[in-house]
Amino acid sequence: MALAHKGLAFETVPWRFTEKDVIAFSSQGLVPVLVDGERVVTDSWAICQYLDSAYPERPRLAEGPQAWAHAFFIKNWTERSLQAALSPLIYLDILAHAHPKDREYFRTSRERRVGTTLEAFTADRPAHLEKLQTVLDPLRTTLAAQPFVGGEAPSVADYVVFGAFQWARCISSVRLLEPDSPIHAWRERMLALFGGLGARAPGYPTVIHEEGTR
Amino acid sequence: MALAHKGLAFETVPWRFTEKDVIAFSSQGLVPVLVDGERVVTDSWAICQYLDSAYPERPRLAEGPQAWAHAFFIKNWTERSLQAALSPLIYLDILAHAHPKDREYFRTSRERRVGTTLEAFTADRPAHLEKLQTVLDPLRTTLAAQPFVGGEAPSVADYVVFGAFQWARCISSVRLLEPDSPIHAWRERMLALFGGLGARAPGYPTVIHEEGTR
Repeated sequence: MALAHKGLAFETVPWRFTEKDVIAFSSQGLVPVLVDGERVVTDSWAICQYLDSAYPERPRLAEGPQAWAHAFFIKNWTERSLQAALSPLIYLDILAHAHPKDREYFRTSRERRVGTTLEAFTADRPAHLEKLQTVLDPLRTTLAAQPFVGGEAPSVADYVVFGAFQWARCISSVRLLEPDSPIHAWRERMLALFGGLGARAPGYPTVIHEEGTR
Repeated sequence: MALAHKGLAFETVPWRFTEKDVIAFSSQGLVPVLVDGERVVTDSWAICQYLDSAYPERPRLAEGPQAWAHAFFIKNWTERSLQAALSPLIYLDILAHAHPKDREYFRTSRERRVGTTLEAFTADRPAHLEKLQTVLDPLRTTLAAQPFVGGEAPSVADYVVFGAFQWARCISSVRLLEPDSPIHAWRERMLALFGGLGARAPGYPTVIHEEGTR
């Protein structure tokens, strides 16, 4: 989304959790990895900042240091609060859809991170769905008043938050948002950006898993 | 803090919950109310936006529409997530320190809002303190990397978040932050701004209420 926002052409390379050798040139083991000519940049936030500084004449992902500073809070909220609330809802789906060679890695690394088994971590889905709605309160209130987190047009903050929802959409059929939620309407706008770039990523049809919980 | 940021002189008027008649001229019953000559503005966010548009030549509370839009998310997080996590920690202190004529109003209005008695709402302080630390994760991560929410200098986002902490500091002795937390160091910076404006508001000495919870 950030590359499309900048109007930069790019190729993507499919990658699996355990294929550390494929990205060993980046001197670390996590995605995303951006290769721009001679330059290698890792970490999604560092990549976004790199794109604005390397291509300042193209549309800015955020307009100036203060907009970046505020967006950094929203990035940390996305990682620490939103993804934390999504994880118990989708981890078992990730496990189920992972390539067989990746399953043990995914289970072991995530169980170490959450301190229990994936089954115990994901139990009681209705409670996790309810907790997600509470975590989403500030996003819902924001998007009820403005079309994008960035205001009238999407910014790096929108792409970061959208990334968390896309993570869920592309691996899980759990219904996270009510159709009349301002967040749902925003996500539709995000999926439609850049000629439907986000919508072209295969997603699962949404299923209401529990009676009375959405 | 916003008026001091703008370098505008002001007088404050002490006010109690039930003194609706004193602010009846504002056609509503909540504070803050800003009176600027002929102009009356209510709601803290609307007041901040008014100050930047009415006094554009003075230091900006946020630099441009996108920085404002991002700050609006942080404002909503402060109200919906942070204040919600602080409320069960300080509501009984507010009740205890309220003027006798305000107590019934405070109890009735807040019990209607939270759907239970204040005593039930505030029970299990250790659990509420632990939940607060989780809610604060994104703020902690942000302030570990930059001195202010607004980046190198405070913005409207800092004043909004600081307002929630000042609300707690001026009514309750409960210790909310560990002294080595980046949030604690930021709050000290905020208290020192504008010649110690925030620090001059009387606050309670901090007390650790429960063994092992901070």
